[in-house]
Amino acid sequence: MIIMRILIDSKGRKYLAKDDDLHTDAGYIKKEEIENSSPGDVLETHLGKKYTVLEANINDYIDLMERRCSIILPKDMGIVAAYTGLGCGNQVLDAGTGAGATAIFLANIVGPQGHVYSYEIREDFAEIAKRNIEGFGLENVAVKCQDLSENLEEKNLDLVFLDLPKPWLVADEAHAALKTGGFLANYTPFVDQVMTLHHVLKKVGFSNLESVECLLRGIEVKSKGTRPKTRMTGHTGYLTFARKL
Amino acid sequence: MIIMRILIDSKGRKYLAKDDDLHTDAGYIKKEEIENSSPGDVLETHLGKKYTVLEANINDYIDLMERRCSIILPKDMGIVAAYTGLGCGNQVLDAGTGAGATAIFLANIVGPQGHVYSYEIREDFAEIAKRNIEGFGLENVAVKCQDLSENLEEKNLDLVFLDLPKPWLVADEAHAALKTGGFLANYTPFVDQVMTLHHVLKKVGFSNLESVECLLRGIEVKSKGTRPKTRMTGHTGYLTFARKL
Amino acid sequence: MIIMRILIDSKGRKYLAKDDDLHTDAGYIKKEEIENSSPGDVLETHLGKKYTVLEANINDYIDLMERRCSIILPKDMGIVAAYTGLGCGNQVLDAGTGAGATAIFLANIVGPQGHVYSYEIREDFAEIAKRNIEGFGLENVAVKCQDLSENLEEKNLDLVFLDLPKPWLVADEAHAALKTGGFLANYTPFVDQVMTLHHVLKKVGFSNLESVECLLRGIEVKSKGTRPKTRMTGHTGYLTFARKL
Amino acid sequence: MIIMRILIDSKGRKYLAKDDDLHTDAGYIKKEEIENSSPGDVLETHLGKKYTVLEANINDYIDLMERRCSIILPKDMGIVAAYTGLGCGNQVLDAGTGAGATAIFLANIVGPQGHVYSYEIREDFAEIAKRNIEGFGLENVAVKCQDLSENLEEKNLDLVFLDLPKPWLVADEAHAALKTGGFLANYTPFVDQVMTLHHVLKKVGFSNLESVECLLRGIEVKSKGTRPKTRMTGHTGYLTFARKL
Repeated sequence: MIIMRILIDSKGRKYLAKDDDLHTDAGYIKKEEIENSSPGDVLETHLGKKYTVLEANINDYIDLMERRCSIILPKDMGIVAAYTGLGCGNQVLDAGTGAGATAIFLANIVGPQGHVYSYEIREDFAEIAKRNIEGFGLENVAVKCQDLSENLEEKNLDLVFLDLPKPWLVADEAHAALKTGGFLANYTPFVDQVMTLHHVLKKVGFSNLESVECLLRGIEVKSKGTRPKTRMTGHTGYLTFARKL
Repeated sequence: MIIMRILIDSKGRKYLAKDDDLHTDAGYIKKEEIENSSPGDVLETHLGKKYTVLEANINDYIDLMERRCSIILPKDMGIVAAYTGLGCGNQVLDAGTGAGATAIFLANIVGPQGHVYSYEIREDFAEIAKRNIEGFGLENVAVKCQDLSENLEEKNLDLVFLDLPKPWLVADEAHAALKTGGFLANYTPFVDQVMTLHHVLKKVGFSNLESVECLLRGIEVKSKGTRPKTRMTGHTGYLTFARKL
Repeated sequence: MIIMRILIDSKGRKYLAKDDDLHTDAGYIKKEEIENSSPGDVLETHLGKKYTVLEANINDYIDLMERRCSIILPKDMGIVAAYTGLGCGNQVLDAGTGAGATAIFLANIVGPQGHVYSYEIREDFAEIAKRNIEGFGLENVAVKCQDLSENLEEKNLDLVFLDLPKPWLVADEAHAALKTGGFLANYTPFVDQVMTLHHVLKKVGFSNLESVECLLRGIEVKSKGTRPKTRMTGHTGYLTFARKL
Repeated sequence: MIIMRILIDSKGRKYLAKDDDLHTDAGYIKKEEIENSSPGDVLETHLGKKYTVLEANINDYIDLMERRCSIILPKDMGIVAAYTGLGCGNQVLDAGTGAGATAIFLANIVGPQGHVYSYEIREDFAEIAKRNIEGFGLENVAVKCQDLSENLEEKNLDLVFLDLPKPWLVADEAHAALKTGGFLANYTPFVDQVMTLHHVLKKVGFSNLESVECLLRGIEVKSKGTRPKTRMTGHTGYLTFARKL
């Protein structure tokens, strides 16, 4: 597995170390210096700004990787992992891939004994996703540039995660691909989608349907006082869960 | 690894299969029938109520295991996993253990290549936690009945998770035990605790401090209409994150 | 105007003083004692429990009056008043009346120079509402036991407030009854209703459509710490506003 | 009472009509045309953009009036009005005035039979507030450029509303100024302030202490689907209520 290195300052501002000199907003650091550094080392730009060298974790990497479409926030993927009991060794399916952030999140949890099958119909996105996944050194993800409804081979999955405009179109396939006890998890921004999805999931035979939304609010602790942050995201998407029984 | 089996009805009501006849609220099922069943099988009570046999996932198990103290909800542990980039193979510390739900959640993600060191000062809780962890067949958790601040041996950890009344008392130990780039994550119900913790974490040298709260709201999709659920938990705890840089 | 008196203990537990001895959960107080008391006096039950005599404000009264249907919470009516700039002297329409809580809220603000026309099709509710409104001594409310869509006489209103299962059926009437610059405000529990309503209100010619939901969360300040309350109402209804321009 | 006129377009964009030509972002309208118009008339700019003439309600006016400090949002003042049962004819005190938005809100509800006593220690704010209040033609507000704690004359008030950095410093005065059954309502951004305030209010003898926060979320109804709005204000201030019994 490739170790990705990032350089991070004390405020959390991060840079991905590539095969080149690193140009920050406060001076540059030579390629050679970075290559010879180890996690924990502190490097200085030619202007004296300090950066700590870290082994990138997945959030560092996802923040910095190539993205040409919006990605699902960690808060929502965290709820998916927790509600479905996702763990090391699980076999999961993810559709659509987009830039690959969700596949990377899932792959990081299921690990080398697990596997992520990630479906994306747009070739340009599939290419970006492949680059991103390989770039992080993950070997347990297969990006498939095809529609989930044609020729789905996966069986006995622990989790099928859908981020599609019309997820109900693949409800049958999702059901067939899951093991008994396995979960479907779905992310959709509109409540109209949630309604249609519930209707179809019941018809297809899923049980334990549940939809939730997750509101995350930051708390600001300052010397003048403590308060929730003014800026807050009011909505990302609804999460819908169903189980094959 | 032991496979725990549960029996679940179509509404999600679950029973843990133990070495005995199973008595449900709608009749019983004989021990032998359960032992001879496989995941996916449907068993009937003597009164005809149907239950599907499942391999328990961690949520099934945590719902049904012995608990004598409150546990952290999946929504909050999901945010912890997502924010810290927790993954397969990670080395993590968890204090205090309580009934072991958090340790089980973490152990399920870090897998056999990872490890969870779980500290609990109360002997009665440590005993319950050990039974619960062994009961689920997890071999990657060490429950230690001792105070985190005495004789902490763990080093180079990816995550230190604290659920203690005064987490700031072990901020130094947590910092020492983490690898560079590792995360401290903390759960506390009171905002006063968050204030003190921020103050101490900064002093100890942690970076990227952030506190959040996660509000989860259920959505009810019924034939008469769709709406958020009336019942909602207004607060569980604040989550605080900090990174060792 | 009749002055309603209540007796309240230090925890906020209230009793409405009627023409009778008052029986509390901690003893009784004689009718004569209550009649001879003035706001601010402290009366004692025969068991020694103390109650302060108060002139009832509308919330005291609404809490204690006869109700046989659910009422809209103060938080939602407060948003209605604030968003529509409701004030003393306004002419408003309210449909359906239910037990009269909304009409009383509106009447309390618009005052003697204002007026509330309150429509209710169910005779039993209209009777309860009339009793409740008269009981509080309000003379600026007319409860009409009829459908809003038949023979609506009111014109030039500042506000039309709707709490009906199918509010879109009276969108035309509401528009006709409002003054230019006047507001329609609508309360509905289901998001499906909000969708239909938006569609129809635009068609009818309303402007500045806006829908919101109001989440109110209690904060608990205790000696052991401060935190949001665990119990919280996750949803009451959506509020939709539109203006006649 | 002066009638303020505004010109509003179909999207809700508003202009206050002053004694001058009106210059909008889509052309101008002559002073004479505006003066000769009545509420409900539609005027056109020289570029053909249409504006409806309205009698300004308080929100129109507050949005457009001179402000040099932040104001409390309608959502929060709506909760204050609803929780305290504020109505026509009430006598209320408001400190600190700021640009006068809160005083205008309160004055609009209490009406000519009621009164608002508004305290502001900064002379520049008091001057702005006076101009704003007179500009809207309100004759029931007295802006006092003095500290609430010196020489408070008001008695028997229905409501004391505080928007001060250290509201606990005037808790005694607030208690003395209220009638029995009257309410103190307080707005503060920091939770630390809420803690101190609770402590002092109890000491001073207030009852029924309660603190809440109001989260308002917009709902977007579009042809592509319905969803909560992405942008949301995560926090404005905590509202604390207490009653004099």
